[in-house]
Order: sequence, then C-alpha cells, then structure tokens
Amino acid sequence: MAITVVGSVAYDTIETPAGKRERCLGGAATYFSLAASYFTDVRVIAVVGEDFGKRQESVFQARNIDTRGIEHTAGKSFFWEGSYLENLNEAKTHITDLNVFATFNPKIPDAYRDSDFLFLANIDPVLQRRVREQMPGVMLVAGDTMNYWIKDHRAALLEVLKGLDILLINDTETKMIAGNSNFVHAARAVMALGPKTLVVKHGEYGATLFHGTKIFKAPALPLEEVVDPTGAGDSFAGGFFGYLASQPEITPAVYRRAVFYGSVMGSFTCERFGTERLQQLTRQEIDDRFNLFCEMTHLG
Amino acid sequence: MAITVVGSVAYDTIETPAGKRERCLGGAATYFSLAASYFTDVRVIAVVGEDFGKRQESVFQARNIDTRGIEHTAGKSFFWEGSYLENLNEAKTHITDLNVFATFNPKIPDAYRDSDFLFLANIDPVLQRRVREQMPGVMLVAGDTMNYWIKDHRAALLEVLKGLDILLINDTETKMIAGNSNFVHAARAVMALGPKTLVVKHGEYGATLFHGTKIFKAPALPLEEVVDPTGAGDSFAGGFFGYLASQPEITPAVYRRAVFYGSVMGSFTCERFGTERLQQLTRQEIDDRFNLFCEMTHLG
Repeated sequence: MAITVVGSVAYDTIETPAGKRERCLGGAATYFSLAASYFTDVRVIAVVGEDFGKRQESVFQARNIDTRGIEHTAGKSFFWEGSYLENLNEAKTHITDLNVFATFNPKIPDAYRDSDFLFLANIDPVLQRRVREQMPGVMLVAGDTMNYWIKDHRAALLEVLKGLDILLINDTETKMIAGNSNFVHAARAVMALGPKTLVVKHGEYGATLFHGTKIFKAPALPLEEVVDPTGAGDSFAGGFFGYLASQPEITPAVYRRAVFYGSVMGSFTCERFGTERLQQLTRQEIDDRFNLFCEMTHLG
Repeated sequence: MAITVVGSVAYDTIETPAGKRERCLGGAATYFSLAASYFTDVRVIAVVGEDFGKRQESVFQARNIDTRGIEHTAGKSFFWEGSYLENLNEAKTHITDLNVFATFNPKIPDAYRDSDFLFLANIDPVLQRRVREQMPGVMLVAGDTMNYWIKDHRAALLEVLKGLDILLINDTETKMIAGNSNFVHAARAVMALGPKTLVVKHGEYGATLFHGTKIFKAPALPLEEVVDPTGAGDSFAGGFFGYLASQPEITPAVYRRAVFYGSVMGSFTCERFGTERLQQLTRQEIDDRFNLFCEMTHLG
C-alpha cells in the first residue's frame, strides 16, 4: 500500500571523522522515501528552491518515488550544516537555513489521496497537523518530531500526537515529552497522549517498540565503520513504515519485524555519506542484513 | 560445577534519587557470589576487617556460599561511598578507602582447589594474576576490570588478559583497552589480547557477546524504577558465569542464554538498595524474568 510522506527535502553539509561533504541531498523526507521505497510505493510532499534540479529529482525517480507533491518555488532549498567530530551519536548543528521551508504550506496532489499510510516527518507540528487533516481516510499515521518542537511548540505538538497511531522518537525526546526521567514511565505517558504504538530509537543501541502492553527490543548492528549517521533515524522510520505498508495484515509480529527492518535501513545509511548507500541497495542486501539481525538476537 | 571468586567484600554508602543507605554490605565479590549462588556452588576469596561480623557472614551463609576463603584481619573493611544523583548510569565516587584491602594477599583454601570455574572480579590485576596462577587446573576463567587499572596498571592487566577465557567489561573500558573508538574494532582488538569470549555491558541497553566470530545482542529489561544500580555489573557477571557453570555442556547457545541470565540478575539488583533484592530471590522469579527477556526479543 502506498505511503505519503511530508517533510524536508534539503541540502546538507556534513563533517564527520571520515571526511566532509558539501551540499549533499538530504532532509527527513528524502531519507524516509528512499528507505521506504525498497518496500512499497512512496509519494513525497515537500518544497524545494531553484537549486533543486533534474539531478536531485532523478535520485527519487530512480527509486520510483512519486515527486509530484514536491513544490518548486523561488529561493533556496532548506539547508543544514552540522558535524559529528566529537560524538558520532549526536550532531552539532552549525547552520539551519529554512529558506523556502519558512513559508511552506503543504498541498496534497489528488493522485496522493488514496494513500493508506501517512508519515509526518519531523517538521513544524502545525504543518504536520494540516497534512493530517487533509488526509482523513488514511489507515495508519506515523510521525516523528524533535527537541525544538517539544520544547517550544508543545501545544501544537500535543494536537499532532492525538492524531498519530505510531510515534517514532529517541530516548531523550521520550523523556522530554513526558517530563519523566524514567524511560518506561515516560514511554507510557507519551502513549497516553495519543499514539498506541511507540518506537523509541536508541542510536547505536537499537530500538524499543511499545505496542499495547508489550515491549520488544531490537539491537542495532555493531558497525565496523560509521561514516555518517545523518538521516539514520529517518531511514529507520522509512524501513519500519515501509515494511508495515508492504504487509497484507499488520499483526504484532509484523510490528516486530518492522523494527528490525528499521534498524537495517538505519545501519545502511551510516555506512556512507548522505543518501549514497540508500540509493544503491538491493532488496537482497536488505534481507540478508535482516537475517543477520535475527541471527544476532536468536537465543539458539 | 563450583565457582571460586576473588574480589572485594566491602561496605558501601550509596545515594541515589530514591534515597540514601549508609554502610550496606557490598563489593564486587559479594554481588557476584549472591547472583551466582542461584545457579551453582560459590566459594569466595576476600579480606574483611573487624567491622565484618556474624550478620554480614549470614548473608553469604543463607545462600550457601562458602566463606572459608574470607580472611579476617585487624582494621576496617574496604569502604566505598558514591552517588548517582545526576546520572543513574554512572556513579560519582566520593570516597574509596581500601583499608584491609591495601595489603591483601589472596590465599586459596584447599577446599576450593577443585573448583572448575574461576572468576577474577575487579581488583588489582597483580592480585588477579596471583590467584590465577594458584589455580592452574580450572576449566574456565573469567574476569572483570575497570578504567583505573586500564589506565595506570596496563602491563599487569595485559598479563591477566592472557590468562582469561572470558572478559566482562563495559563499552568505555573496551574502547580504552583497545585505544580504538569503534566498538567492533575495539572488541576484536581486546579479544586478540587473550579472551576468546568478550561480554560488553551497555548498562540500561543490555550487553553484546562476542564469541568466536559470532555476535549476540541481549537487551536490558526496561525498569519501572531504578533504585540503585550499584553492583549491577557484578550481578550480571554472577548470573552469566553461574549459569555457565550450571550447564553440563557449554555450547554457543549456552553462552547466549548466559548473557540473558546476566541481564536478568543485573536487573534485579537495580530494584532495591545494595544486595537487598539479590538476597531474597527465588529461582522461579529468575526464570520468569528470563522468559520475559526471551519474549521481549522474540520476533514472533
């Protein structure tokens, strides 16, 4: 079933111990769509500036991602610059230029309206809600957010949470939303705000799925080399939601396997700069790594 | 099969967000023995002062732990004071008084000499080696260490590593020993120094087992309340090694289950101050939690 995703399509300048890349194609919606495209049809809603051309468009097209919802407007695309020189697990942001994103008003192409799955990537919760309201018929809605919205846009964020089936965030964000430093209590408190399913990402330590009263733990692949962790969380979300959307029936076991596929896609993203690795995968490589994850957690 | 453990038996004054306890019975060998005692016979080698009396002795005796190797000497027992007020994952040490431990020269009772398993808890590597050399006939030797010995007693520690089958340490210690910030490379480098099996503890994120070329990931239980994490790592080691010693044959699958039992015992320890929880367990509670761990990682 098709997924519509709304979020940023951007340029990133990234520095890590492995090197530096200037203005790679990035943004949450980009990583999410590429990751999800290995599982199901994906349709993007975003806004870009005049610096987004045929070459960038072709990255989406090569993965059969529908880009009719990417609005082209005067000005520059969203730009982010950050580094991971001291800590590979946490980016230090140097520049965030919203540019065309500052006045973004998401419009949903008619061709997207039959999507059964909707993903609200990390953007202003006011925009997330606006998209959610324009797609009342979707079957499953998942979303992401970040510390900035939690801290300074709480009321708007709480409105979004009410309309989510699944929230994907990290440890710190979970504790921030709940105002509780105990991880389990915080997770339960967040679920009480709306999402019946919560996926908490722990970076290099994997992820925890809270689904109803059940808890499931998935590891992360111990990586021989982390070249660039940018987009790993969005790739996780893409693998997770993409796998869900690809299944004929969504059972608790499917949710668990989806968390593994999320970890798999996140691990691939870290192996190269930007979206380089996500552009060149095969489904066989993905399934091989999924099997490796199974082997790594199987009691035997 | 019986385990002999050498390490500290001590008094701890501990402050956590849940409260404060003065001079609880503690020490690595205490936590280790109590945890391992639910699986197999345990024999302790340690030194205590005149402040260690019948009441403390009875904690060991209640769990059928052999205390004939606990030497009583003039002076005070090892004392540690620490707090976890800012970070439940890392103790801030206020006082470390070695006291009788400063001149400890471990002696192995004849009754201990037929032990097949030996655990060298976190003490001066010179003492660890001395004990190792006095028990040449053991089948399996495991050990622990800490940043202090890694940093300032490297030569002695490297000698100990040569004689270990299994090393149990945490992430930071792994990277410190190897001088490599990539976790996988660091683990391989540590194994090249001696131990064919490496168990890396990640605190609230579980543990990773490196066993030959295979990697196994175990979660930690998401705890509703962490009262006091003191001794969680030593309890992990006790559950891990105790389970190994209890099995008729030590296969790769037994190693994996041992990591789960380690996580189980560590999680119990955190639920109360000091050794309170470890003193009162039943094997049924332990196996129930083991099954919960299995459920939490089972793909379904």
